[in-house]
Amino acid sequence: MSEQKTLQEASKEDGEINSRLKNLEEKPRETSGTEIKAEKLFEEFKEVSVTEFFRKNKSHLGYSGKLRSLTTAIHELVTNSLDACEEAGILPNIIVEIVELGKEHYRVIERDSGPGIPKKHITSVFGKMLAGTKFHRNIQLRGQQGIGVAGVTMFSQITTGKPVKITTSTGSGKVNEINLMIDVAKNNASIIGEEEYSDYWKGTEVECEMKGVMYYAGERSVYEYLRRTAITNPHAQITFIDPNDNKIIFERSDKVVPKPPKEVKPHPCGLGIDDLINMSKFTRVKKASHFLSHELARVSEKKVREIQEHLSFDLKKKKPRELSWSECEEIINAFGKVTFLAPSTEGLRPIGEEQIRGAILNVLEPEFEVVLTRKPTVYGGIPFQVEVAVAYGGKSGRKISDKKEEKGFKISSEIMRFANRTPLLFDAGGCGITKAVNEIDWKRYNIKNFETAPLTVVVNLSSTHIPYTSAGKQSVAVEKEIIKEIKIAIQEAGRKFARFHSKKQRAHEKEMRRKTLLKYSGELASALAAITGKNEAEIYSNLNVSIEERIKGEVSGDASE
Amino acid sequence: MSEQKTLQEASKEDGEINSRLKNLEEKPRETSGTEIKAEKLFEEFKEVSVTEFFRKNKSHLGYSGKLRSLTTAIHELVTNSLDACEEAGILPNIIVEIVELGKEHYRVIERDSGPGIPKKHITSVFGKMLAGTKFHRNIQLRGQQGIGVAGVTMFSQITTGKPVKITTSTGSGKVNEINLMIDVAKNNASIIGEEEYSDYWKGTEVECEMKGVMYYAGERSVYEYLRRTAITNPHAQITFIDPNDNKIIFERSDKVVPKPPKEVKPHPCGLGIDDLINMSKFTRVKKASHFLSHELARVSEKKVREIQEHLSFDLKKKKPRELSWSECEEIINAFGKVTFLAPSTEGLRPIGEEQIRGAILNVLEPEFEVVLTRKPTVYGGIPFQVEVAVAYGGKSGRKISDKKEEKGFKISSEIMRFANRTPLLFDAGGCGITKAVNEIDWKRYNIKNFETAPLTVVVNLSSTHIPYTSAGKQSVAVEKEIIKEIKIAIQEAGRKFARFHSKKQRAHEKEMRRKTLLKYSGELASALAAITGKNEAEIYSNLNVSIEERIKGEVSGDASE
Repeated sequence: MSEQKTLQEASKEDGEINSRLKNLEEKPRETSGTEIKAEKLFEEFKEVSVTEFFRKNKSHLGYSGKLRSLTTAIHELVTNSLDACEEAGILPNIIVEIVELGKEHYRVIERDSGPGIPKKHITSVFGKMLAGTKFHRNIQLRGQQGIGVAGVTMFSQITTGKPVKITTSTGSGKVNEINLMIDVAKNNASIIGEEEYSDYWKGTEVECEMKGVMYYAGERSVYEYLRRTAITNPHAQITFIDPNDNKIIFERSDKVVPKPPKEVKPHPCGLGIDDLINMSKFTRVKKASHFLSHELARVSEKKVREIQEHLSFDLKKKKPRELSWSECEEIINAFGKVTFLAPSTEGLRPIGEEQIRGAILNVLEPEFEVVLTRKPTVYGGIPFQVEVAVAYGGKSGRKISDKKEEKGFKISSEIMRFANRTPLLFDAGGCGITKAVNEIDWKRYNIKNFETAPLTVVVNLSSTHIPYTSAGKQSVAVEKEIIKEIKIAIQEAGRKFARFHSKKQRAHEKEMRRKTLLKYSGELASALAAITGKNEAEIYSNLNVSIEERIKGEVSGDASE
Repeated sequence: MSEQKTLQEASKEDGEINSRLKNLEEKPRETSGTEIKAEKLFEEFKEVSVTEFFRKNKSHLGYSGKLRSLTTAIHELVTNSLDACEEAGILPNIIVEIVELGKEHYRVIERDSGPGIPKKHITSVFGKMLAGTKFHRNIQLRGQQGIGVAGVTMFSQITTGKPVKITTSTGSGKVNEINLMIDVAKNNASIIGEEEYSDYWKGTEVECEMKGVMYYAGERSVYEYLRRTAITNPHAQITFIDPNDNKIIFERSDKVVPKPPKEVKPHPCGLGIDDLINMSKFTRVKKASHFLSHELARVSEKKVREIQEHLSFDLKKKKPRELSWSECEEIINAFGKVTFLAPSTEGLRPIGEEQIRGAILNVLEPEFEVVLTRKPTVYGGIPFQVEVAVAYGGKSGRKISDKKEEKGFKISSEIMRFANRTPLLFDAGGCGITKAVNEIDWKRYNIKNFETAPLTVVVNLSSTHIPYTSAGKQSVAVEKEIIKEIKIAIQEAGRKFARFHSKKQRAHEKEMRRKTLLKYSGELASALAAITGKNEAEIYSNLNVSIEERIKGEVSGDASE
């Protein structure tokens, strides 16, 4: 009904606009002699499946370049394992093995200690895109698209022609082993072989081959990906066997299972009309008033009454399904006039200041570090939270090999980006996190040249829906609210840093003064002894004690600032 | 058959790997008390449609931010119109109108003089993602995904709840007017209203409303988008009526219809095994030998014989469908050992040096410009071609407002990125074109500080398949071959530029010497007159003539270098 009204409204204005446009085109259109008719052009019209789409546009999924493609595949498998373990309340134990089979040809094996996959879902998880348990829930997980692992199957298959082998058990005593490929045209799994046997273990193992990829141990390698994953997931045990058969274990440093991710109701702030309309179609409650308090976070019955004051219709007399677009628009506008409690922190699972500090001290051994957690807030109705850390000195920053330098390298500042604890190694240039960090005026915080400072800036963005710029999930869209939060957090950290830095500078200056004073105390003592006739050694000793006390007093005075 | 063989091969190695992995897990897995079973977790398993996916991830399509979202919508509509006109061999006449209806609420109207859309295809073009005429063809068009225009319908509908109105006619005397929305769950159009009436015109007009967007006249605005589109599409007439009712016409400067884009056969260099397998299923020819010469570019019968020499089986005795993965792999490997002609330039439609120079002279009025076109080449089997221009001085570079500066602004260098003549305004940071330009050591070309030089670098990448990093099509993936081509082109331009620049510098130095010499010629003349007793004025005049001649000789000597 509301749609028809919309159409009628729209058609009123049609005549006017059409005549305006027609007026613009006084002259006849130029056409060439070889014009081709529309019917001919549309002979080529065709629909394609989503797998076909991503097969042709595999760079959207992060499969571009030999180095990146391999890291992407590991990233998809590992995030899936971590999500499964956490949802099931299991401490993750993950093993990644990469075996070199030939030139640019590798076997990848990834095994987790997760809950396993029920038999009937195995084919969909690995052989169908846009299918999964995560997409439609308001829950903070690493995966959120239902594309990633099926993307691994696709990439493996298009580079080697071989199926992926999945071995999984839910701990029921039965183990399922399935070899499958994707039927690209249909976006469906095709099973190449399957087996079921008895064994008591639980977890999932994926084994596949890839060609046209390369393993290397650089800055954006599988190794670095796993190392960073270990930093932000101290509860996970990650073992990596590299192509040279080196076994690296990132030990679990935290034995507490993180609280399981909780599905949260959407917060009214920033919710779109379209979202509300969609939700109104699926709710089980009968009244629109109840719909709001039942389906949204932070909307009490008292708040519903406040909302009602701004509406031209009675919420109690409407069924949710009957809400028209313009009525939902009224509700959304009313949300803007009512004050709600901030979104619950329950749905978000930041890493935690202690965990971040521990990881930073462990990995970077900095002279100084600031760790900061912002309160959760929303962008476009979606809760998110920012954690930042700034570490200075020690192993902070990034070594860039430079033969001109004495040590053979120079130091550059480093930005470590994470989204829901997952390292973002690629597409840094287009990422909102990078943008936010680069917009900081570091000079204000006593860092004369950010580029060359021994500084590591860590940013972790937690959200029930990270606004990635592409299906490759390596870059966060430039959302104003997110940029703002990151900048505020870094600025706050920057102020603390500046205090440390100027304190450090003052301490340095005092030390210089102390040295200078002590240097001359011998001469002074000898002169005073000559004038006063007192014992030179005694004067010298007294002088030194008094200098030390004075300097010490100044420094401790500082510390209590 | 080949697939089963693969499976057998793979299972041979299974025992070994499994035991290796099992050895890794000496300790029992840690589990928490609140473990949740897999069956419970998978209760939430669901499939979603591609529209649902992009509704939730609209930032992948470029709908993020109020300013960008509006530019994205115009970009999709205009590229679609330009493609349609060129495929039909029609000189494009495009009108874009943006009307402000309220706060962050606009009506967008886009009309073209294209071939129109046959009635039965209207709903699919605008109401279904992954459907279109472009996706599966090896042809250089701006659109290539079948998502863009349906994305406009989706964005309009989720921000306003209103349908999009399409008015189109193929010139048959019948005009179709359809109001439609997308059924998000089904990825199908739902028709809200339709009408057919008689009129003689040809073209397509799209009208829709958008909320939560903003028009502004800045660097990445609709205005700038259309201005740059006009620069690289001199054959298009583009009229823009902005929200303040200003009418801006970018006049057509070239009345020649560009040669229509041609579908080209894939070139053997870089073709994947998977691609070959796919093609073998759809060919109509009967023999594998014939399949290669018939379906691929630059593969003559002579080349087939050369390929045959590297194979373990007889191409003439195989049907294309019977080719196994490993046989296709043999063929692909053989391709690497045979020399083929470079891919045909037919399929690519660069802008052309004359057109680029004309546009640059017109818009930037530079002191000096270099325009360069590289020969077409391939990345991963896909032909592409790079055109670059470097313009110096005049209006080159970008003005950045800076109150500290005398003029209130400072100049910064500017990179104008284009893909298939379409301006890329967003995601510059993550783009391979930006990366290539930034990797240039500009100091070698006498540009001390690239950042602050009055320099505009134009790069246009033409390809039958641009490797965009996301469905938003604003950033090109970092493909090694593409980066290399762009860098070679700019370096070549840089060398020419350096010659110009050092000539300019030498001319400047000589002018300084001339001035210095002339400055002292008076004193010299007077001193010589005193010594020789000759006429001072005469000496002075002779001196000056000799200085001018000497300097002139030096300069013209330079010019003939």
